[in-house]
Amino acid sequence: MAQFFNVLPPDEARAQWLAQITHRTGDTPDPGALERAAAAQDVILAGTIPSPEDLPAFCRSAVDGYAVRAVDTFGASDSQPAYLTVTGEARMGEVVTATIEPGQAYLIHTGAMIPAGADAVVMVENTQPAVEQEVEVLRRVAPGENVLQIGEDVRQGAPALPDGTLIRPQDIGALLALGLGGEQHPIPIRQKPRLALFSTGDELVPPDQTPGPGQIRDINSTTISAMAARHGARPDRQGIIRDDPEALSMAMRIALAPPDAADLVVVTAGSSVSARDMTADVINGLVEHFGGPGVLVHGVAIKPGKPTILAVIGGKAVLGLPGNPVSAMVAFWLFGIPALFHTMGAPMPFRPRMQAVLTANIPSSAGREDYVPVALAEEGETITATPIFGKSNLIFTLVRAGGLAKVPLNTTGLQAGDTVSVYSFPG
Amino acid sequence: MAQFFNVLPPDEARAQWLAQITHRTGDTPDPGALERAAAAQDVILAGTIPSPEDLPAFCRSAVDGYAVRAVDTFGASDSQPAYLTVTGEARMGEVVTATIEPGQAYLIHTGAMIPAGADAVVMVENTQPAVEQEVEVLRRVAPGENVLQIGEDVRQGAPALPDGTLIRPQDIGALLALGLGGEQHPIPIRQKPRLALFSTGDELVPPDQTPGPGQIRDINSTTISAMAARHGARPDRQGIIRDDPEALSMAMRIALAPPDAADLVVVTAGSSVSARDMTADVINGLVEHFGGPGVLVHGVAIKPGKPTILAVIGGKAVLGLPGNPVSAMVAFWLFGIPALFHTMGAPMPFRPRMQAVLTANIPSSAGREDYVPVALAEEGETITATPIFGKSNLIFTLVRAGGLAKVPLNTTGLQAGDTVSVYSFPG
Repeated sequence: MAQFFNVLPPDEARAQWLAQITHRTGDTPDPGALERAAAAQDVILAGTIPSPEDLPAFCRSAVDGYAVRAVDTFGASDSQPAYLTVTGEARMGEVVTATIEPGQAYLIHTGAMIPAGADAVVMVENTQPAVEQEVEVLRRVAPGENVLQIGEDVRQGAPALPDGTLIRPQDIGALLALGLGGEQHPIPIRQKPRLALFSTGDELVPPDQTPGPGQIRDINSTTISAMAARHGARPDRQGIIRDDPEALSMAMRIALAPPDAADLVVVTAGSSVSARDMTADVINGLVEHFGGPGVLVHGVAIKPGKPTILAVIGGKAVLGLPGNPVSAMVAFWLFGIPALFHTMGAPMPFRPRMQAVLTANIPSSAGREDYVPVALAEEGETITATPIFGKSNLIFTLVRAGGLAKVPLNTTGLQAGDTVSVYSFPG
Repeated sequence: MAQFFNVLPPDEARAQWLAQITHRTGDTPDPGALERAAAAQDVILAGTIPSPEDLPAFCRSAVDGYAVRAVDTFGASDSQPAYLTVTGEARMGEVVTATIEPGQAYLIHTGAMIPAGADAVVMVENTQPAVEQEVEVLRRVAPGENVLQIGEDVRQGAPALPDGTLIRPQDIGALLALGLGGEQHPIPIRQKPRLALFSTGDELVPPDQTPGPGQIRDINSTTISAMAARHGARPDRQGIIRDDPEALSMAMRIALAPPDAADLVVVTAGSSVSARDMTADVINGLVEHFGGPGVLVHGVAIKPGKPTILAVIGGKAVLGLPGNPVSAMVAFWLFGIPALFHTMGAPMPFRPRMQAVLTANIPSSAGREDYVPVALAEEGETITATPIFGKSNLIFTLVRAGGLAKVPLNTTGLQAGDTVSVYSFPG
């Protein structure tokens, strides 16, 4: 029932996993959604929003100047100005009822309504006051020049924002400009995915307790939930579970049970072979009750993070992370965050990657993708990346890092002076 | 009293402005700070945090294998294994009291305590079971190999996190690993800067009202506060103010008055010359009451955003933004966000920039920095950037964009095929 693959490349492993995870399709019109987005929460649109009106709704001037009939300015130059009669002034926010006849101009402020008859605006810099009520136009304008046309930003009925949009400040602005998002026109949004998080390990104590000899504080629950919260999830930290298959199985059954079943279950396990095998066995034991396919991938060709487990139980994503805090964060970044977007039916946002020049060699092995913490610096237009020294399970290697340098799959390492892709971490 | 400069380059304008803005130095120990950081809020550390203990606190194994005295493995190979006597097993979370004598080994799990006497761990892959209670070691280990030493992550008393740190998930992990951040050991954090926001313009109506002819909805208040909220500020939207110097002056006096004076006052004005001049005059009128120097910069060599006003009133930052929504967002990104970090005494985080290949020409003028909305795509390892067509005051140019391409100050434009720096926007 469960399929095992041996250390797949990460892109292939992720694609196989996501393909089997169901995603939410329901939508909830939510009058508070835009305010939450404005308060820096991640909000995802459910369904494409058509524009209810033309934007702008009227012809507006893009500059300070004179609204004119473009034809009246043809041939105008410094030496041969066109002389036009100024018949009035259009201020912002005012209804302009005048009509511009041949030979006339209308003083206009940026953003004000273009009078009827006018089809262009001459910038004030290209004019000169003449006798009273007259202006000299020193440069010709083309029809439409410096005019924002009705619907030039977006036309009524055109798609304003696509399904699955992660709402950024400019998207908030676009929705508000169209009168959308408030009480009267709430926008439909995806419910936040619920992330259930378990830390397993007999050596763990909660972070607010003092560890005894041989024990350490559990930090993975909090680092992973902090990463998930930054991407619109509802993290639900379930605490520490002893290395006991029965206890873990029971906890996961509760997390996956309706009505508020987790969309993604994350188990951080010890990094020992026995701890990893226990997690995989417990996951496969849930197939009978919830449906499969169970564990799809047990081991990925990445460093750190090789012992990652990718599983699907009844269409829900289950992710087994290595217990070491750096591996857990890197593997969650590579697999957990894309899974959160997938469960919301939203495209994974583009991850900015910088091109940086390495200041020291990075050894690697072909057939493995490495993510190496680096410190970043700017030297003029060049960004330099200096690998952070330290074993891969030390959390302070990430604390001291400005990003992660990627050593591609089929590279045996990179040399000082090579250009390397660096990702902000965790972004 | 006030100094005027004509269209400075943006980096120079920003530096002159920030140099005159006071920043918060007080700190507040806050037991809820780490949980807020975990809930994706921006939290900034006030003061350097020294590590209260060694991390790790005991010697731990980095792998599954056998704890040994390294000297006992010298010369070991596949053909000439070293035979060691296995005297016990160290599990995670257990106190290990055994001492390893010459010729002995101890089965050990990843993360478990290294027994006394042992100074290295042989990975299980490099061993082979021999007769009962014996293991064949097939490869030599160096002293310290596969062992996490006491204090290897961070030493007691060493600075764990520097003053002004914007707390990321890995920083949360580091603090928790050291027992910091909870009720018993709250961390000192900077108070969030307060941002007072005014929109001026006779053409504006609140976004939930239907604009009449010649009117538009005010979106700048919300887009700017959404950007500020993403960087740890407390945005305080004060609504729309008519184009009336008295009304604007009164509103700004209230915003700047103790005890909860705004750290940054933002006024989005119309883009017309008269609206900009009114804002500058009102700002300079406040100098008498609050202290100067008033308007420092009126116009910056950027597009969009040229009419930006940078001012300081009594040590507080005042920023006049152009009224057009794209210019307002770009100028707030270039000036407002660095000012927020400055008021918190925190270094401005590194802004990731991608190197992308342009698919079309971008015209520009030397002496001006342009930020052009672009759509991003990946073609193999190459990122391509396609300029978004449209006038610079259309909000949908930003909606359709994945980032902003920067045309440097001393460039007359870029050609299709050129490499260009692209920033995520607003990041």
